[in-house]
Amino acid sequence: MKSWIMRRRTDTLHVDDYALVDIDPPAAPGPGEVRLRTLFISLDPYLSRFMKIWEGEHPGWEQGHVYGRTVAEVTESRADGLAVGDKVLAVARWQPENVVPASSAMRIDPEIDPPSLVLGVLGASGRTAWIGLDLAHPKAGETLLVSAASGPVGSVVGQLAKRRGLRAIGIAGGAEKCAYVESLGFDVCLDHRLPDLAGRLAAAAPKGVDILFENIGQTSLDPALSVINEKGRIMLCGLAQHYNDEVPMQLDHFKALLYKQVTLQGFRTADFVDRYEEATAELMAGVREGWLRYDEQITDGLEHAAEAYLAMLGGQGIGKRLIRLP
Amino acid sequence: MKSWIMRRRTDTLHVDDYALVDIDPPAAPGPGEVRLRTLFISLDPYLSRFMKIWEGEHPGWEQGHVYGRTVAEVTESRADGLAVGDKVLAVARWQPENVVPASSAMRIDPEIDPPSLVLGVLGASGRTAWIGLDLAHPKAGETLLVSAASGPVGSVVGQLAKRRGLRAIGIAGGAEKCAYVESLGFDVCLDHRLPDLAGRLAAAAPKGVDILFENIGQTSLDPALSVINEKGRIMLCGLAQHYNDEVPMQLDHFKALLYKQVTLQGFRTADFVDRYEEATAELMAGVREGWLRYDEQITDGLEHAAEAYLAMLGGQGIGKRLIRLP
Repeated sequence: MKSWIMRRRTDTLHVDDYALVDIDPPAAPGPGEVRLRTLFISLDPYLSRFMKIWEGEHPGWEQGHVYGRTVAEVTESRADGLAVGDKVLAVARWQPENVVPASSAMRIDPEIDPPSLVLGVLGASGRTAWIGLDLAHPKAGETLLVSAASGPVGSVVGQLAKRRGLRAIGIAGGAEKCAYVESLGFDVCLDHRLPDLAGRLAAAAPKGVDILFENIGQTSLDPALSVINEKGRIMLCGLAQHYNDEVPMQLDHFKALLYKQVTLQGFRTADFVDRYEEATAELMAGVREGWLRYDEQITDGLEHAAEAYLAMLGGQGIGKRLIRLP
Repeated sequence: MKSWIMRRRTDTLHVDDYALVDIDPPAAPGPGEVRLRTLFISLDPYLSRFMKIWEGEHPGWEQGHVYGRTVAEVTESRADGLAVGDKVLAVARWQPENVVPASSAMRIDPEIDPPSLVLGVLGASGRTAWIGLDLAHPKAGETLLVSAASGPVGSVVGQLAKRRGLRAIGIAGGAEKCAYVESLGFDVCLDHRLPDLAGRLAAAAPKGVDILFENIGQTSLDPALSVINEKGRIMLCGLAQHYNDEVPMQLDHFKALLYKQVTLQGFRTADFVDRYEEATAELMAGVREGWLRYDEQITDGLEHAAEAYLAMLGGQGIGKRLIRLP
């Protein structure tokens, strides 16, 4: 059986840091365990941080093996509550089969179709958008700015902000992504690849920015700080631009945090489990009623996982990026 | 009469950007106004920001004139509630006499002796320390780090933190200041002029830093981010190191804000007027009961104001720095 590993400890991720190796198939499940056939692997920017420090530093990651969120089908069960044929969400290795404790596999509501939606709009990405926006205390009439606006988190942030009566400005890379973001109902999307993002942002936000939902880093954060309003709130959700570097963050407008009495909050969705139910209910309603749009960009074949992962980190693709296994 | 002005719009403050010029003494007070004889001028780092942009951009600052907080004596009054001989706290020009609306002069409780304490421990500096610490929700057993620990804000922050059962670590410039800070009851003070501040900080904070009270900027913020704990709180009170520059902030450890789920809050004491009474009550009790120590470093003579101001910005002096007029 094939499985992805990291070849070496590395500060920057290149495709030759990955290898698809042959390993023995997993042993039969023990008591309380299930065997899973992988259907989808979720490509998430934050994983790159763990990939760089795989050497035993991330609890539960066996040295060298690449882990991620997957949607899988139970093919053998020695656990109560999970039956053959069930679809589950599980953190598992990037390989066609895994044997995991049932406690680390969550059964997916059969009404969720396709089940891959639990990796995006109806899973961590959607919940992160919902919870991060909620923590920022959005008020109708305010202006929200979100980076990586064509991604699975940013696209939901903007749509929820519009639904709450805010002006929503997105930042994305390239004309195609920006057109997509505007098609979702954002008031405007700015292409960070064009010159003078700060100037265009000032024009797009004539009343300044009240909430910045930050997924990327310096490229969007620094211009945002140049137009942030007094008592502005910055939800620091991700720093995708920087996971793969070790250079200092350089911010021309850092002083705005003081001068404008800004609050910046780094948050982790898992710290707000008490809000999951409310978040999921609204996201599911949004999908069912059609006002919450989402997209999946699917690459077929385990052998393309590393390449697709690095392409996503480099800014390619719209919506949720997934690997599908046959 | 002499008065300090700024010679020019300037990005960096040098002593020759200031001039002590002859002006006409102020006209007689009109209805509702008082004439004040300046006793003390407060030297505050944040003023440097307004000094650089004096050109009509700071409301109420007449072009070119330097303004600051002063303690003064009423020598002529055409206002109810203020009588000749009263001591007041007023924002006024750096000159021996000012005529101001009574509404901008606040009578000082005669029990406060010397009255200059309202410029430091019993005024904005002490209140800023109290309110900033309170906003950080300190808990006994936590570790607090404060920069500019020998200054009028930092010295109070550390003493209040000790009183609330925290471990208090100060950062200051030079052995003399550090000895002073430790004499106030801080557990330890680190000299930022010596090498490897980050390494010494890690040793001084074996359980990490829970609260950073930041008065300075990059020099202290970046090492603090290297040892901040999960759910750490950063109270951004001042950036004295940067008021006088226009270079980008460079932070090696910015990502800690995300990885540790840190909250950073830029705050302005004036936004928390509802806490003034409680703050002042504890600060006055501290001074009266002797557990809250403070120091004033007084320079005599208006003619030394610019030089003393720039020396303070450069890190000279302990406690509250004041100009005293004869």
